[in-house]
Amino acid sequence: MKLYDSRLAPNPRRVRIFLAEKGIEVPTEQVDMMAKQHLTPEYTTINPLQRMPALELDDGTIISESIAICRYFEALRPQPALFGTGAEEIAIVEMWNRRCELNLLFTVAHVFRHTHPAMKELEVPQVPAWAEANRPRVIDFLRILDAELARHAFVAGDHYSVADITALCAIDFMKPTRIAVPDELVNVKRWHAEVAARPSAKA
Amino acid sequence: MKLYDSRLAPNPRRVRIFLAEKGIEVPTEQVDMMAKQHLTPEYTTINPLQRMPALELDDGTIISESIAICRYFEALRPQPALFGTGAEEIAIVEMWNRRCELNLLFTVAHVFRHTHPAMKELEVPQVPAWAEANRPRVIDFLRILDAELARHAFVAGDHYSVADITALCAIDFMKPTRIAVPDELVNVKRWHAEVAARPSAKA
Repeated sequence: MKLYDSRLAPNPRRVRIFLAEKGIEVPTEQVDMMAKQHLTPEYTTINPLQRMPALELDDGTIISESIAICRYFEALRPQPALFGTGAEEIAIVEMWNRRCELNLLFTVAHVFRHTHPAMKELEVPQVPAWAEANRPRVIDFLRILDAELARHAFVAGDHYSVADITALCAIDFMKPTRIAVPDELVNVKRWHAEVAARPSAKA
Repeated sequence: MKLYDSRLAPNPRRVRIFLAEKGIEVPTEQVDMMAKQHLTPEYTTINPLQRMPALELDDGTIISESIAICRYFEALRPQPALFGTGAEEIAIVEMWNRRCELNLLFTVAHVFRHTHPAMKELEVPQVPAWAEANRPRVIDFLRILDAELARHAFVAGDHYSVADITALCAIDFMKPTRIAVPDELVNVKRWHAEVAARPSAKA
């Protein structure tokens, strides 16, 4: 088994944190996205969509998409449960993980990819107007998240879950994107300090 | 229990097809998105993100995000399994469902929302350059899907799954978006005819 990993990108980090929370170690191979190694013919045979990360099983089967890789390991090692247990909690974790993807991780990524000079050859075409359309959506969603975190310890309720991992990676990706978390979002700041202090956050 | 549903949008259709495949009936309330009913204060209290669909449980709990709603019913009624069974199949279904969302449903939706005159007040601002950036990605992904469907009966392998539902809703949403499936993609066309003929497709 081998995980194709990239140190700087937020999606591979989601998988590394997930594995650290599970206590699972997987051999990794670094793919340098800034050097366009994910666009080479070699990596394209691994993932025709040229996205990172990807997991190669011992029989050669490839699993791409961060959350698909996480679900594979959740099924192999159900504890600690990071996708919830019981119908309602499973649905709430899925809801908040997706809300944090669609409204935070993806919106931050759109701003980053469509404004950052380093992305000029990786995001073609860069559409600056699309970055600016997304910029206010980041903060709009953080306000909704702040209201939720006023009522719960974690993003999807009282237990740490994959939704916390997605939100942490998205918020930390705001730094290179040069968007700050507004100071008045005290619940987001309290939660961020807590999840960023877990050993898994360094994975 | 009540499902907030919109007849014309692709995401609520995903949930209706999923429920039809499971043989589950849920009372629905129509929310007219073209009349901006999903932007009213009433619906915003149900889903602060103002997205459709949403499921209201008998205790008042709200589950939004189509796939979160589907997972709720999968947990309540596991058969037929539409998210796969066993670690590897679960991961493959998740991978293909997400690939079909990110590269097909979302790209088609970006073209629709950023070009269609009827969306002028719902997608603010419309960014035509972003629509044009996405238009070729729709066809690029359909070629990858066609290669997969040359080897398998269904999107995620040999069994019908939620990935087929996402792909069907995305491809049918190409019609109002005025993008055609290229004639040479014979495997996509074979598969589409089959899944569109299932009774659930009319849900």
